[in-house]
Amino acid sequence: MRATVMYRAGDVRIERVPDAAVEGPKDALISITRACICGSDLWPYKLLEPTPGGRRMGHEAIGIVEAVGTEVRTLKKGDVVVMPFAYSDGSCDFCREGLNTSCRHGGFFGTGEIGGAQAEALRVPQADGTLLALPVARDDALMPSLLTLADVMGTGHHAAVCARVGPGKTVAVIGDGAVGLCGVIAARRLGAAQIIILGRHAGRIALARAFGATDAVSERGAAGVARVRTLTGGSGAHSVLECVGTDEAIQMAIGMARPGGAVGRVGVPHYESIPASQPAFYSNLTVGGGPAPVRAYMQELLPDILEGRIEPGRVFDRVIGLDEVPDGYRAMNERQALKVMIRP
Amino acid sequence: MRATVMYRAGDVRIERVPDAAVEGPKDALISITRACICGSDLWPYKLLEPTPGGRRMGHEAIGIVEAVGTEVRTLKKGDVVVMPFAYSDGSCDFCREGLNTSCRHGGFFGTGEIGGAQAEALRVPQADGTLLALPVARDDALMPSLLTLADVMGTGHHAAVCARVGPGKTVAVIGDGAVGLCGVIAARRLGAAQIIILGRHAGRIALARAFGATDAVSERGAAGVARVRTLTGGSGAHSVLECVGTDEAIQMAIGMARPGGAVGRVGVPHYESIPASQPAFYSNLTVGGGPAPVRAYMQELLPDILEGRIEPGRVFDRVIGLDEVPDGYRAMNERQALKVMIRP
Repeated sequence: MRATVMYRAGDVRIERVPDAAVEGPKDALISITRACICGSDLWPYKLLEPTPGGRRMGHEAIGIVEAVGTEVRTLKKGDVVVMPFAYSDGSCDFCREGLNTSCRHGGFFGTGEIGGAQAEALRVPQADGTLLALPVARDDALMPSLLTLADVMGTGHHAAVCARVGPGKTVAVIGDGAVGLCGVIAARRLGAAQIIILGRHAGRIALARAFGATDAVSERGAAGVARVRTLTGGSGAHSVLECVGTDEAIQMAIGMARPGGAVGRVGVPHYESIPASQPAFYSNLTVGGGPAPVRAYMQELLPDILEGRIEPGRVFDRVIGLDEVPDGYRAMNERQALKVMIRP
Repeated sequence: MRATVMYRAGDVRIERVPDAAVEGPKDALISITRACICGSDLWPYKLLEPTPGGRRMGHEAIGIVEAVGTEVRTLKKGDVVVMPFAYSDGSCDFCREGLNTSCRHGGFFGTGEIGGAQAEALRVPQADGTLLALPVARDDALMPSLLTLADVMGTGHHAAVCARVGPGKTVAVIGDGAVGLCGVIAARRLGAAQIIILGRHAGRIALARAFGATDAVSERGAAGVARVRTLTGGSGAHSVLECVGTDEAIQMAIGMARPGGAVGRVGVPHYESIPASQPAFYSNLTVGGGPAPVRAYMQELLPDILEGRIEPGRVFDRVIGLDEVPDGYRAMNERQALKVMIRP
């Protein structure tokens, strides 16, 4: 079969690899019908050291179950399923608490130990706990939005939950990538009264406004912080969603939070530390977040997609085949594309 | 009148100063009947640069109202009152949200702009919002416990709230000072199933056990983290109360928290930053805390003291007069005393 392999920063190839297959009794084999390139894939695209043997890429997918292991109970051949970026057993104490990303028998796709989703097929460990069967046909018009349940919509929602968004609150969303835009959807969905998007890309800002953003701020650093403070009556935002992962972004997030407020951070941190003293401590700020347990959020978010209340699939602005994946990375890295869907 | 003035690290003096008085319409003048030395006072005792004119010390008190300004409505001469370490109007948006330490018209006692409580008397700004009248006589036997409402009991409670302590949870408390010990009381009060105190002082550990600690760990650093992990079945504690304020303490706190857990930090941070990446991010840890809004907690905690369900006053192990305050600082700094009560 064909799969995406990254060998070093900027070097992404589509290669023939051994066919994926059921290996253990809890596995499922899925053929991939939709996958995508993630903003987090751009970090290795910028930074990956030369990697002999390469790294399989991709961790978001919708697919069709082709085969299951002997212990799989909830899935059967032919099911249309959505696959979160982490696999999990669904039954350990962490999974029961809704923290599937810390599953005692779990792990992450596209990390070396397991294959990637930017491929024709994939072996899915812990299939019962990992995959969610969807009540739609394989080419349903809702596929783009359903695909976001694999990562970006659940991740934007996680940022909002960690930032304690609620009815009537003021919210700032740092980052106009797909996760930030889904954060806007999540904030609106959770009842925020004011949603400020921080970003500079005109098309993305327009989409953020369509998703419910009430204000847009193009400034960065101290100027961006000052602008958010002005827009929130001088005090800062109750909830700040940090959807970038840079040092500048986390510093801005801390700086623009209202006393007693919360920062939800979901950008993979490419910074070493969070400022501890002023204003984080003296303003009683809370900082939380991490890899989103998107599997735990799927059941909550799915009805809103099926019934058309949210349309996170609008973040996809390019659809490509597997052979075009290297160019898809380039386009996202150069911000020519917001989020690229792959139809292997 | 006499008051405590610190001129530099180690240099604490009792001096004659101008009498405190009502200066504005919202002020109250109180005579101090009980005050104390705080663990946070030991930071300037160790580190204060030479300060011409000196710094008035003390921010915890019980006193008697001697006079009130023309706009004070809820207090009258003769009332026995407890004074939190911060003053606040009790009516702004932050106070209504229970974050009195961020009051729009508030501030902190013993910081230069306002006097200190280690004195014979004190002017209290925003008296209606700041002081709570107590339903006891001036020398009630409960005075030690009531005095802890001014800071340490409310601060320990804040650490527990920020660390999301709740029924059945596992809790680690870093620090066996008065705040840490009150954190044990708070964790027990909020229903924790396991409470691990981290400290080395035999007398304090014994008191922690009397307050509800189920385990004690004397190791520090990585060894302390490992010991807490062992005691919690390998996963770490749901809730970690950081009651010290050093870099080692916050690093330990992050290290011993269970995935999805929370760190409540109330030790005045003498560290620059909080580690951002592993495990804080990948384990979805939440870090919160700051100066405790003890005024907001008084109403909740007071009945438990009045009815004898908690006895935080047991943290006081020495009672001195005002003239002995310099020696009280020395004793606390050398850990000969846990917490010193002052009867001016």
